[in-house]
Amino acid sequence: MYPKAFTALVEQLQHLPGVGAKTAERYAFHILDWDEEQLNAFVKSFAAIRTGIHICQICGNLAESDQCAICRDHARDNGVICVVQSARDVIAMEKTQEYHGVYHILNGVISTTKGILPDDLNIQSLIDRIDESTKEIIIATNPTVEGETTALYLAKLLEPYSLTITRIAHGLPMGGHLDYADELTLIKALEGRKKM
Amino acid sequence: MYPKAFTALVEQLQHLPGVGAKTAERYAFHILDWDEEQLNAFVKSFAAIRTGIHICQICGNLAESDQCAICRDHARDNGVICVVQSARDVIAMEKTQEYHGVYHILNGVISTTKGILPDDLNIQSLIDRIDESTKEIIIATNPTVEGETTALYLAKLLEPYSLTITRIAHGLPMGGHLDYADELTLIKALEGRKKM
Repeated sequence: MYPKAFTALVEQLQHLPGVGAKTAERYAFHILDWDEEQLNAFVKSFAAIRTGIHICQICGNLAESDQCAICRDHARDNGVICVVQSARDVIAMEKTQEYHGVYHILNGVISTTKGILPDDLNIQSLIDRIDESTKEIIIATNPTVEGETTALYLAKLLEPYSLTITRIAHGLPMGGHLDYADELTLIKALEGRKKM
Repeated sequence: MYPKAFTALVEQLQHLPGVGAKTAERYAFHILDWDEEQLNAFVKSFAAIRTGIHICQICGNLAESDQCAICRDHARDNGVICVVQSARDVIAMEKTQEYHGVYHILNGVISTTKGILPDDLNIQSLIDRIDESTKEIIIATNPTVEGETTALYLAKLLEPYSLTITRIAHGLPMGGHLDYADELTLIKALEGRKKM
């Protein structure tokens, strides 16, 4: 009943994650109200992806060119590599302004259910970049089953190298309540307890 | 910290209704995974809007050309005009397969808080299309404060014409429960009671 072009737009919008028919339709009606300028700016930002977004050849992070801003920054400590699942985690870490090392983006985690094996991840490039300057590798995959599996796999893989391998701490989140925490978090919080 | 092109994409995605920074970022990361074909299809569907979607010159509905599919359909009863707020409502009505008249899309409702006055709506064209064949005008704006205001305004405006002016019924939705219904709905349901 809608014009073909409208139906096509609604269909395309459903390719966005978590967007179903209803939401796509809402988006499409909103888009129809955009003026020429807004519509062009939107389309242009999509066209710019292929030219303006690259993958850092060193760490796998999003980059403007061959290397990302962090890998190009000489003020960063190349001796410490923080291994994360995705480029999004880099942003989260950077927001703390407490970490001055570099990153390595795995682009996923080992998952037998999803059929993601170590070879599908950005792991070989991590091994390749280890040199005499490398002191510590911090494994910061998510505290999920897959994240833990991947962390254990990496720890095992990196064992032969004379490096300090660390894992980010698990425990109660700041501002959290004991009675709202799940058992696994509480167990991790107990295991990780420190002398006061 | 992200490449400029990525930030630009995230910014543009935030122009979609109800999409904030977090959702836009999620969309953007998903879009980065699209292959060339998918990306082109998406962009193309946006470019096709201006050429493929028109506004029906008679009723204001979305149309492939100057007139929408319903206005062009000679099997429809032109004597009955159902006045709705938006093109979306036409789809909802058409799904019932019970209505065989035509539509008129107001493109909004009178709202003093949003500064939408009768002149901002598609009302003059409704008056203009009334002729000797017009028998009934069904006012099907939403049962909200603005929808009711608009319905009353239209009823007053159409009074001089020798037409039957009707308002869609308000009451309990089918499958609804009395104890979940709000007071206003119950009042309307009582007012609209019929002999069994």
